[in-house]
Amino acid sequence: MTTRVTSTGAHGAGLVEFRDTVRGADVPAVRSIVASSGFFAPHEIDIAVELVEEHLARGAASGYHFIFADVDGDPIGYACYGPIGCTVGSFDLYWIAVRAACRGHGLGRRLLSEVERRVRRAGGRRLYVETSSRALYEPTRGFYERCGYSAEARLDDFYGPGDAKVIYVKPVDETGRREDCRIRGG
Amino acid sequence: MTTRVTSTGAHGAGLVEFRDTVRGADVPAVRSIVASSGFFAPHEIDIAVELVEEHLARGAASGYHFIFADVDGDPIGYACYGPIGCTVGSFDLYWIAVRAACRGHGLGRRLLSEVERRVRRAGGRRLYVETSSRALYEPTRGFYERCGYSAEARLDDFYGPGDAKVIYVKPVDETGRREDCRIRGG
Repeated sequence: MTTRVTSTGAHGAGLVEFRDTVRGADVPAVRSIVASSGFFAPHEIDIAVELVEEHLARGAASGYHFIFADVDGDPIGYACYGPIGCTVGSFDLYWIAVRAACRGHGLGRRLLSEVERRVRRAGGRRLYVETSSRALYEPTRGFYERCGYSAEARLDDFYGPGDAKVIYVKPVDETGRREDCRIRGG
Repeated sequence: MTTRVTSTGAHGAGLVEFRDTVRGADVPAVRSIVASSGFFAPHEIDIAVELVEEHLARGAASGYHFIFADVDGDPIGYACYGPIGCTVGSFDLYWIAVRAACRGHGLGRRLLSEVERRVRRAGGRRLYVETSSRALYEPTRGFYERCGYSAEARLDDFYGPGDAKVIYVKPVDETGRREDCRIRGG
């Protein structure tokens, strides 16, 4: 499925198209998008790329689903998510990244909202995101908080000494959406 | 490596041997041990077996390490653990199970202690275990607590509505052991 939306035009293009299908050309595109962030170590970038390859090899059975944000046919951002094994309706957001040159125009927020819509449609109840407590990830944590995610757990020293894992969650089912509005006062 | 220890003899055998190598015969043995617990759904039992097959196919590169507790060459219990990707020194305990007929003699505790020793030797700092908040798992949670694990996080409705995930952790490195003694008063 492709969702065609009018963009702000701020990144120099009139249209952003959201795409769920994965193509061979997405392998180098994902490497380049993730590397452009400056957030990830080489072995982490390799993992991002492996998830694309895994989907290309095994399709939906891989458990990794993708949404690409294309401008003129080229991805400038993407998200990767999937159901969590042995749960009923819990999903993980594995990656979300926007090419550095295209950031600051709300594309990450729109990608995340597209993920939430698909998770809800697939019967999902809760979407989880894990991130680091390090200062480098403060903008990341702020982004999730602005998108309605709350830090439900913190595992001290998880990634390494002094580097905790923070687990964010957002209820994405209908009940969750109502609760969200009530708690946040709309 | 095989560690030979004298057992209590209560399960009808004089010797329990701990074994790190994985054999083809462990595939049906793990299925039978995990099924005997009555705790796991068929698809969860399949996952336990898949981890053994994954190790047989890819060895240590699978990320799944095993310890089997053999009596007269047959496993009566086992544990599966491994390093958590993108972390420095965090390990997960994926499974620990003792054949139902052999429970109540401290074998689970000894298996867990063998895992902790190997994690420490591999430079591990923290060993994580995830379990359910459901009443069925109360003995499991009690077991981890008696073994020095503390519930560091709880994710409500994670496994399903009303079924939270509880994340236990134990520091297994030297610092952790000292802290453990201090906090618990020996």
